[in-house]
Amino acid sequence: MINRDAPSLLKEMATREPFSRMLNLKVLEIRPGYAKVQAGVAPKMLNIHGITHGGALFAVVDEAFELASNSHGTIAVALNMNITFFAPTGPGDILTAEAKEVFRTNRTATYQIEVTTDDGKRIAACQALVYRKKHLLPGLEKNE
Amino acid sequence: MINRDAPSLLKEMATREPFSRMLNLKVLEIRPGYAKVQAGVAPKMLNIHGITHGGALFAVVDEAFELASNSHGTIAVALNMNITFFAPTGPGDILTAEAKEVFRTNRTATYQIEVTTDDGKRIAACQALVYRKKHLLPGLEKNE
Amino acid sequence: MINRDAPSLLKEMATREPFSRMLNLKVLEIRPGYAKVQAGVAPKMLNIHGITHGGALFAVVDEAFELASNSHGTIAVALNMNITFFAPTGPGDILTAEAKEVFRTNRTATYQIEVTTDDGKRIAACQALVYRKKHLLPGLEKNE
Amino acid sequence: MINRDAPSLLKEMATREPFSRMLNLKVLEIRPGYAKVQAGVAPKMLNIHGITHGGALFAVVDEAFELASNSHGTIAVALNMNITFFAPTGPGDILTAEAKEVFRTNRTATYQIEVTTDDGKRIAACQALVYRKKHLLPGLEKNE
Repeated sequence: MINRDAPSLLKEMATREPFSRMLNLKVLEIRPGYAKVQAGVAPKMLNIHGITHGGALFAVVDEAFELASNSHGTIAVALNMNITFFAPTGPGDILTAEAKEVFRTNRTATYQIEVTTDDGKRIAACQALVYRKKHLLPGLEKNE
Repeated sequence: MINRDAPSLLKEMATREPFSRMLNLKVLEIRPGYAKVQAGVAPKMLNIHGITHGGALFAVVDEAFELASNSHGTIAVALNMNITFFAPTGPGDILTAEAKEVFRTNRTATYQIEVTTDDGKRIAACQALVYRKKHLLPGLEKNE
Repeated sequence: MINRDAPSLLKEMATREPFSRMLNLKVLEIRPGYAKVQAGVAPKMLNIHGITHGGALFAVVDEAFELASNSHGTIAVALNMNITFFAPTGPGDILTAEAKEVFRTNRTATYQIEVTTDDGKRIAACQALVYRKKHLLPGLEKNE
Repeated sequence: MINRDAPSLLKEMATREPFSRMLNLKVLEIRPGYAKVQAGVAPKMLNIHGITHGGALFAVVDEAFELASNSHGTIAVALNMNITFFAPTGPGDILTAEAKEVFRTNRTATYQIEVTTDDGKRIAACQALVYRKKHLLPGLEKNE
């Protein structure tokens, strides 16, 4: 019986996550309070104006946020997300979302998530808040 | 040559929108300053906790927002979205997002988007802001 | 010994609140999940452009939010506020902020706060979130 | 006739700003896209719970935001502010708000504002958006 740490467990969970798989989201890194996720913009992710749909961009942001906020081993649920869009992207662009923990208490935690393209262009920034439950992630042993 | 109004044009554009098609989003109604979009939660929309992924929920919100904000016939681009999550949903739930215009100037406009389930449960609320360009939607004749 | 209800207790507390007094904020109404606050824009509330300072406008919003979220008798602390500004105001304008509860659980609650002027002009809208503590407001008896 | 640069002009304007004076806000620094403002928490800034009123804290945030966003010499008006509160403060605490430009186009710009106390404690973080007018600040010569 192996007591795995939360980041590696989360990485495994993410590879099996249905929505993430549908959009080909790729987890680059998870550390306590941190996650980095990447996705290429595929034609199926576009909106009526021919640019990346807000929902597709948000999916990358939310994935990084979800992984960073669950990285301490207890379940975190999103309360609020505030996203500001800087520049549009389109087919061929590679989006990287990096989530960093800004503040954490026993009950809530705040994350800043930045989205950039491969060539370093800033695409969006998001400030996001979770409520932290006491339950451990399924698969994690009680750490006493 | 028919000069169609923006709502009916948008409805057509939405049926061809790639991301919307991937998630089976259904446009129920578009009027000036208003849009209503629906989606059933499919298994492919779930996250690591087995509930609807934030990105999937946001896609429904963003679709209603996009259609309501472009409903006046000129192109609107999202500047900021602030979403608060009330309750989780899962497979079988039917999500309805209703976007209403709260305030509009020549340059910006604000929308309130509410997400509910079929049985009237409140799932999320979003306050969102667009920048309004002067360009007409492609396909709309110059209205003089 | 009188067991007063939270709204009337809050109304009293508000009349003694230092910041509220400095800005002459007037509490018009408090009910469970609801509060309405009013303030005239005085010359001392202006910013460098000669219009109402964001901080002064926000004070009216925050007061209504604070009273509505504490109206159930237990202490609520602000987690997040998202405010969108529609139109500027200036000296002589009378601002009314109305806070309505949108959703409430044992742990968090969300409020929508609208600011208007006397002549019904929309000035700002705010979506705001609290964490709800279990402690009662000081002065309230334990309700068993 | 002296063509002064915007930061020094703004610093002068801030010293005459009514709301800022009422709260004793002190401008520590203004550079293009940047501003730092400080305020001691006075007893008159407290709320019903005896901690700093949200409106008072927000005033410090908004002042830094206003100065940073007007620092390029053209008038910027606030569109949206999203503030997350980390920890309460009280009498004697010294609040410093630092506003940094995150992204800027000809039409809009985004700022990140962080509030800390003297001993480095994080108090709040705010993501804020302006609409940028073409008009110069009054007192600035047309730069050709």
